[in-house]
Amino acid sequence: MDTNAVLDLMWVVISGILVFFMQAGFTLVETGFTRSKNTGNIIMKNIMDFCIGSLSFWALGYALMYGDAAGTFGALIGKPSLFFSNPNEMHSLFFQTVFAATSATIVSGAIAGRTKFSTYLIFSLLMTLIIYPISGHWVWQSGGWLSKLGFIDFAGSTVVHSVGGWAALVAAILVGPRIGKYVNGKSNAIPGHNLLIGALGVFILWLGWFGFNAGSQLAISGDNANAVADIIITTNLAAAAAAITSMFVTWYSYGKPDISMTLNGALAGLVAITAGCAAVSPAGAVVIGIIAGVVVVFSIDFIDKKLKIDDPVGAISVHGVTGALGTLLVGVFAKDGGLLYGGGFHQLGVQAIGVFAIAIWAIVASFIVLFILKKTMGLRVSKVEEEEGLDKHEHDMSVYN
Amino acid sequence: MDTNAVLDLMWVVISGILVFFMQAGFTLVETGFTRSKNTGNIIMKNIMDFCIGSLSFWALGYALMYGDAAGTFGALIGKPSLFFSNPNEMHSLFFQTVFAATSATIVSGAIAGRTKFSTYLIFSLLMTLIIYPISGHWVWQSGGWLSKLGFIDFAGSTVVHSVGGWAALVAAILVGPRIGKYVNGKSNAIPGHNLLIGALGVFILWLGWFGFNAGSQLAISGDNANAVADIIITTNLAAAAAAITSMFVTWYSYGKPDISMTLNGALAGLVAITAGCAAVSPAGAVVIGIIAGVVVVFSIDFIDKKLKIDDPVGAISVHGVTGALGTLLVGVFAKDGGLLYGGGFHQLGVQAIGVFAIAIWAIVASFIVLFILKKTMGLRVSKVEEEEGLDKHEHDMSVYN
Amino acid sequence: MDTNAVLDLMWVVISGILVFFMQAGFTLVETGFTRSKNTGNIIMKNIMDFCIGSLSFWALGYALMYGDAAGTFGALIGKPSLFFSNPNEMHSLFFQTVFAATSATIVSGAIAGRTKFSTYLIFSLLMTLIIYPISGHWVWQSGGWLSKLGFIDFAGSTVVHSVGGWAALVAAILVGPRIGKYVNGKSNAIPGHNLLIGALGVFILWLGWFGFNAGSQLAISGDNANAVADIIITTNLAAAAAAITSMFVTWYSYGKPDISMTLNGALAGLVAITAGCAAVSPAGAVVIGIIAGVVVVFSIDFIDKKLKIDDPVGAISVHGVTGALGTLLVGVFAKDGGLLYGGGFHQLGVQAIGVFAIAIWAIVASFIVLFILKKTMGLRVSKVEEEEGLDKHEHDMSVYN
Repeated sequence: MDTNAVLDLMWVVISGILVFFMQAGFTLVETGFTRSKNTGNIIMKNIMDFCIGSLSFWALGYALMYGDAAGTFGALIGKPSLFFSNPNEMHSLFFQTVFAATSATIVSGAIAGRTKFSTYLIFSLLMTLIIYPISGHWVWQSGGWLSKLGFIDFAGSTVVHSVGGWAALVAAILVGPRIGKYVNGKSNAIPGHNLLIGALGVFILWLGWFGFNAGSQLAISGDNANAVADIIITTNLAAAAAAITSMFVTWYSYGKPDISMTLNGALAGLVAITAGCAAVSPAGAVVIGIIAGVVVVFSIDFIDKKLKIDDPVGAISVHGVTGALGTLLVGVFAKDGGLLYGGGFHQLGVQAIGVFAIAIWAIVASFIVLFILKKTMGLRVSKVEEEEGLDKHEHDMSVYN
Repeated sequence: MDTNAVLDLMWVVISGILVFFMQAGFTLVETGFTRSKNTGNIIMKNIMDFCIGSLSFWALGYALMYGDAAGTFGALIGKPSLFFSNPNEMHSLFFQTVFAATSATIVSGAIAGRTKFSTYLIFSLLMTLIIYPISGHWVWQSGGWLSKLGFIDFAGSTVVHSVGGWAALVAAILVGPRIGKYVNGKSNAIPGHNLLIGALGVFILWLGWFGFNAGSQLAISGDNANAVADIIITTNLAAAAAAITSMFVTWYSYGKPDISMTLNGALAGLVAITAGCAAVSPAGAVVIGIIAGVVVVFSIDFIDKKLKIDDPVGAISVHGVTGALGTLLVGVFAKDGGLLYGGGFHQLGVQAIGVFAIAIWAIVASFIVLFILKKTMGLRVSKVEEEEGLDKHEHDMSVYN
Repeated sequence: MDTNAVLDLMWVVISGILVFFMQAGFTLVETGFTRSKNTGNIIMKNIMDFCIGSLSFWALGYALMYGDAAGTFGALIGKPSLFFSNPNEMHSLFFQTVFAATSATIVSGAIAGRTKFSTYLIFSLLMTLIIYPISGHWVWQSGGWLSKLGFIDFAGSTVVHSVGGWAALVAAILVGPRIGKYVNGKSNAIPGHNLLIGALGVFILWLGWFGFNAGSQLAISGDNANAVADIIITTNLAAAAAAITSMFVTWYSYGKPDISMTLNGALAGLVAITAGCAAVSPAGAVVIGIIAGVVVVFSIDFIDKKLKIDDPVGAISVHGVTGALGTLLVGVFAKDGGLLYGGGFHQLGVQAIGVFAIAIWAIVASFIVLFILKKTMGLRVSKVEEEEGLDKHEHDMSVYN
């Protein structure tokens, strides 16, 4: 292998290792922002997302996503093949596996505290085996229909985060709210049990996101090197601007700078910049971050208080809404073709098509899966199990002693 | 230095940094899986393992392990020299130092909650100064007798993990069980105080293991690059398969998917694949993971309930038993020379010799050291100290306030 | 970009990512070592240090530090320019941004538990925007006056840590001690609420420090590779030696090996070696670590019990005192020009000038800023707010539920 290829492989592997660590970040955010009695269950869901995803994506998912796009349905789905074994692409399998697992993990948080573990495992499997790879194929395989249309989602605001976020939306609706969350039409806050652990999770996610976004360049040799550095900067500036913005929005709205919302703001900035991190300027990244930082606060409130959908960690807003938003904003801020750069509405229109199409896919596909699971195995634990905690009933143990 | 050498050095340094972080993972696993009253003591033991190991391995251990194998005893021990100072091999010193410290740290968990701190420090010193380097020399110095025999232990299932695991076995026997662990011949579970911290530790260990295994290629230039990517995949698949397997084994055996055992399953898969990560196929890695995931559950139960050896974190099973198992399985699954690949029993036989020889060495050497320490300084704290906690008596403080 | 430049950029980016993670380490150390009722506030201060620093250093700080040194005041301050946009230096912006944020974060710990959040944000902004960049310019811009004098501070014992430490000193004095800290002239220990989290923070800081010091080589191609490996080793040995030393000092002085002091010892070793990590031998690093490990224990005690300055996490000693000490010791232990290597007192004198000049700058500049803030917005929360906790009053929430 020549030096450039070695450099590129090394960069992809290191980035993939950073993205792997995001699984720990998700685990900490989801456990920290929810109640202690379900902590063990959330640990298990997150670990299993990654373990199942590692096997399923290797076994089939990767092929459905990146397999040959030839043939009648080639623009819709990759050519299936079992047990990926291309000896020159193992680094690519690894990098894409950690992305697939991220998509599944997003759902976990939105249905924390009341979902049957066995059912969840099956959903998680289908997420990484089928749902995520198919829409991913549309965008990230060069023969996918959205790729051919010119849709830009560099590192997956939509391909990874929105898909996870919309599946989380469907799941949260079908599972229903936690007992005590909505009483007499009023939304009760159910505070998390350890925000410090949640904050550590956010730091770990931010860390991993450098791999997520800059690794998606898939190369670092030659001119890719400056592109990688640009992406690191746009990613960081968007996250920073979003966190500050969310803090000030809550300071103004609630009278105090809110910690949870500030942390969610950072994540919203990261999600939003993911689509355009390679396409926008540093200043564009700051503005995208500011917009995401405002929107995520109102979206979380709206989904909680108006729509009355119980999403304990705000996953629908952080990943679904902000992911869609960030993808659309590429049509505005892209230095090449964006509305603000004289590109007219063309790119924005393409972005809207992609965001919309993938939302429909994620919602319909996850609805079908979850509806069947609801009617067969059941989605939800019993009232007693929920009240006494999933750790006790699903795992017969207690995390804290 | 030419470009290939720079690439290789960079890869070794980055991998070593990841392996360093495993010290944090061990600390969290050991503290999380044990009681809160000894948390500070475990922190101190883990930090000191690394600090002492960093000095001792630089001062002498590295030379005993990698020093010249010429002379009468060259196949048994490296030529001693003090204070490593080869300016072209500092990256190697770093990488091997973090491995040595890992070996020592494994013992810490098995004797948590009742061991004298001062005695432990001396044992830890001798572990990284002498015990670990000598058997390591046999395998990883090209003139070592097991190396010449063709023994395969790529990244240290036996050289690092089993050595630590067998030393842990000896230590756990000599120190004896915690008060209250075995009453009237019955084993009482003593639950850990924070499984979330333990789970974070497992994620950190998994993260570090990518450096542990793929860094052991010691190079990434040219054809090494694909080898590195292969190792990342086999490592990850084995861990994932093992965790899923352990979960289902406990689900079937106990009626519920057990969190601790699932976490230990992931670690067992990582330990088991460490020897053969560069020698087996992805499918082979999955099978090794499945076997490790089954064995670790029964091994932990057997050592606890039948042998009545008190190992609070399962270190003997996870590192000793699974390390030996994984090393043997190289003789079965190695694409080049394995039983399943038409290689006959030759490689399996060599693996058995190596596993056995190193087990004997680790057991005898650590027994001698620990027996002398027991008869002189004493291994164990007093009954009052143990009951009230090592944090209070050994360190005069409390971790949680 | 040619291969060497790619390698260098990649190394700087990876190192910067590691340094970024130090923000999580600081957050954990500061929260773990203080009381639970202020945990959320410390999280917010640390996150905001990084978010504000990311924006301010991009907007102006980087230019003041690394901008052109020509003109009358060129040796004192870089030529200002807004919104850094050099497409070939984005990796440098990232690496320097994470350093600037570190400097600000150091202050946070010393004034934990009683400082107004709004005031703190403004101070943090001015720290990364003006205070840190100006003295940084003196040393790390080749036209800076201390650089021209031959002052050696390779990775920032003084430029980053002492500047943060002296600002922390001024801040701790101006804010005053926590209620109950000094009663009738006696210093009361106020124990931290979670030393395990603090220990994890120390591991994360140690991890990040490999990027901090070895990344400061700013290159890895060619002969830089061995320099990087050397730095990794000196950094690690100094930290290990310092932690062991601090442990034994407390064991001897207090009768027990103290956990907090051992952890602070590791950090002191890291701070002290930062200036000379590229200039001293491994043995020199060990000696520097030993000296730092002794000094930090007595310095923390002295500042607490004699000076009666309330610094909840020992930031003034760990970063200010040890940073200055380590910078001076370069004049003794530098292989090229150090006192012990026949260089006479010249280098030691230059080091003393730099340490002194930057201390004056940091103290005067932060005093002016903090004094104005004290007289306008106020530095301190009310008695009730402090007693009931900043989380409740500044953020209207509770971290643990």
